[in-house]
Amino acid sequence: MRDVVIAGIGSTPFGRHPEATIESLAIWAAAEALSDAGIERDRIGALYVGNFISGPLNGKEVLAGLVADQLGLPNIPCTKVEGACASGGIAFRHAWMSIASGMCDAALVVGVETMSHAPTSQTTSALNCAMDNENDGPSGLTFPGLFGLSWRVHAERYGTTREQVSAVVRKNKSYGLRNPLAQMGATLTNEQIAASPNICDPLQLYDCCPTSDGAAAVVLVAKSASAELKNTLVDVLATVQTRGSARISGHPDLCSFEATVQAAHLAYQHACVSPADIDVVELHDCFSIAEIIDSEDLGLVPRGLGAVWAAEGRTSIGGDVAINTSGGLLSKGHPVGATGVGQVFEIVRQLRGQHPNQVDEARIGMTHNLGGTGVACTVSILRRSDA
Amino acid sequence: MRDVVIAGIGSTPFGRHPEATIESLAIWAAAEALSDAGIERDRIGALYVGNFISGPLNGKEVLAGLVADQLGLPNIPCTKVEGACASGGIAFRHAWMSIASGMCDAALVVGVETMSHAPTSQTTSALNCAMDNENDGPSGLTFPGLFGLSWRVHAERYGTTREQVSAVVRKNKSYGLRNPLAQMGATLTNEQIAASPNICDPLQLYDCCPTSDGAAAVVLVAKSASAELKNTLVDVLATVQTRGSARISGHPDLCSFEATVQAAHLAYQHACVSPADIDVVELHDCFSIAEIIDSEDLGLVPRGLGAVWAAEGRTSIGGDVAINTSGGLLSKGHPVGATGVGQVFEIVRQLRGQHPNQVDEARIGMTHNLGGTGVACTVSILRRSDA
Repeated sequence: MRDVVIAGIGSTPFGRHPEATIESLAIWAAAEALSDAGIERDRIGALYVGNFISGPLNGKEVLAGLVADQLGLPNIPCTKVEGACASGGIAFRHAWMSIASGMCDAALVVGVETMSHAPTSQTTSALNCAMDNENDGPSGLTFPGLFGLSWRVHAERYGTTREQVSAVVRKNKSYGLRNPLAQMGATLTNEQIAASPNICDPLQLYDCCPTSDGAAAVVLVAKSASAELKNTLVDVLATVQTRGSARISGHPDLCSFEATVQAAHLAYQHACVSPADIDVVELHDCFSIAEIIDSEDLGLVPRGLGAVWAAEGRTSIGGDVAINTSGGLLSKGHPVGATGVGQVFEIVRQLRGQHPNQVDEARIGMTHNLGGTGVACTVSILRRSDA
Repeated sequence: MRDVVIAGIGSTPFGRHPEATIESLAIWAAAEALSDAGIERDRIGALYVGNFISGPLNGKEVLAGLVADQLGLPNIPCTKVEGACASGGIAFRHAWMSIASGMCDAALVVGVETMSHAPTSQTTSALNCAMDNENDGPSGLTFPGLFGLSWRVHAERYGTTREQVSAVVRKNKSYGLRNPLAQMGATLTNEQIAASPNICDPLQLYDCCPTSDGAAAVVLVAKSASAELKNTLVDVLATVQTRGSARISGHPDLCSFEATVQAAHLAYQHACVSPADIDVVELHDCFSIAEIIDSEDLGLVPRGLGAVWAAEGRTSIGGDVAINTSGGLLSKGHPVGATGVGQVFEIVRQLRGQHPNQVDEARIGMTHNLGGTGVACTVSILRRSDA
């Protein structure tokens, strides 16, 4: 397989874009990434679009063709991929694959979703398309239900407290405050978090990511074809896609996602790095407790200490590993199909030294995108090319 | 890129499966393909699922994970791809790509759709997800509208008659009659066709494919890893994916789809064969006139003579090139996401000499899958390995 670099990135703000069509958000981000890369449209050899629920919420499919047409891309293979909340990460991996395999020298990946225009009941139904409704539907468990259970198990097993989990919320909301692309941000106290409305005990309002619109895009190029590009390039050291059980009852442990564990293991192996080498991470904090579990599953924090490390500031900027400096899904927002590509966007900004919440001397970064009840996962490891 | 062979195929009957979930149809076809290949599930390194509108019609996404889970596949990359009516062909190409690139040695592709359970108005809305509704919606053109226009242009330019187009209908309905997996079949007269209800002038009922449920699956293996497999293997000589305009107004000619022309051109080039080498073809006859246009776009029939050749029997078994011996979309049915994989299933049966409408000494076959208003296209060329 050939070496691949990231040459350009683009993103809309994540948040509410009530006037925008889903195509227009995708094109906004894509045009920015192409311009950032300084690459002509006719050099792009493949387009991948990550999207989850444009069909149910917008009555629009075949998004890859729509976006390519309106962007003026050549008559190249244009593919939408879907894997629930991991759609963006899967799209990124396929754009990488199309270059690494030698199918083309440059590829564009766009992740996009619009959700905020739909009534909450419709959005909730659409999000539940990511569950195994035949098997898990009868139990009545939704995603907050699953992560509420995970929290309870974590608390019972490791003594995790509301205050420790609130440290994740406070961190991510404060980073969101300083990220102009984030949907929201706040300086919160433990008391404010503990007083927020109950969603699904023990999850409260601030523990849950918002409903978001947005798009992010990345241009990837074969390293061998990148000589004349002007940007600080970022190497894709590894990008791995795995799956876990689609059923909640299929998970041997509610406090761990095997798809994450396996993806991280393979990614470290492919990249020839260890968890200690990772300077900055964007991981899938759809709920506050998810960040704690993910940090353990990724091997960044010892098993059972995710909450302790968060409370001690060891997952903040200046700590052992900086997690979700964008604000994460909790604060930056979670336009589902865009999230995985948005994570790459954020890590590239860190590795270029251009992040609003910059980590000093960030050299190696990681992204982690998790879909459904852990049924789909991608982990990527990126390195500043001149590092 | 490595050589790839088709080692196993499976398919449900296409038609109406009101009691079946979409997962169960996918698993039916997939289990059959795995068994046909004689390959253990733990050898499969990637799963691709082609599906178009399970979200809007079933409230189910993340189908690749659901299917892998219930099939008992390993924790491999499982990806749903979507490109409207070309979703199946795109999934097939990605399964090929995952092996050709060296990512894995064996891959499973499943195409699946269920549509017949939904009210017609809901199905029509869902199918319209494949159009550029922002640009073409205001014109009121649906897919029958587009293909009705195509017919009118073809008739004006080349003198194509109702009777010539009926030759396509009669051929495909008669092949469907002898294909046990086909949704329908009939021995029809020109008079019966001409007396059928008007759908979108000049399209009449028999000119239109039905609403269908169904699934098809194919197991692909690296040629270098296929030594011990028992089946007659089929080489994938080429599999190409292109795009055309997403807008009807973006097509320079309503009598030709540039995505097809380009995909065919590249496929012949990659496979090192010419149109005259193709013995049997499954092409995208969503409407009778589409078969005529496709046969010209694929270079199988001289431009403008598609209707004449059909009427003269030159596209029937025993003619110059046998087209849609399965019955095609018109008669076998069109469970959208399944169609492209079902076409491969049919060509493999021909190349193995096991087809209910067998073409004598079929050695090289072609599949052609077209999405939306020609926005996505795949063309594959397959050859009996021992030919």
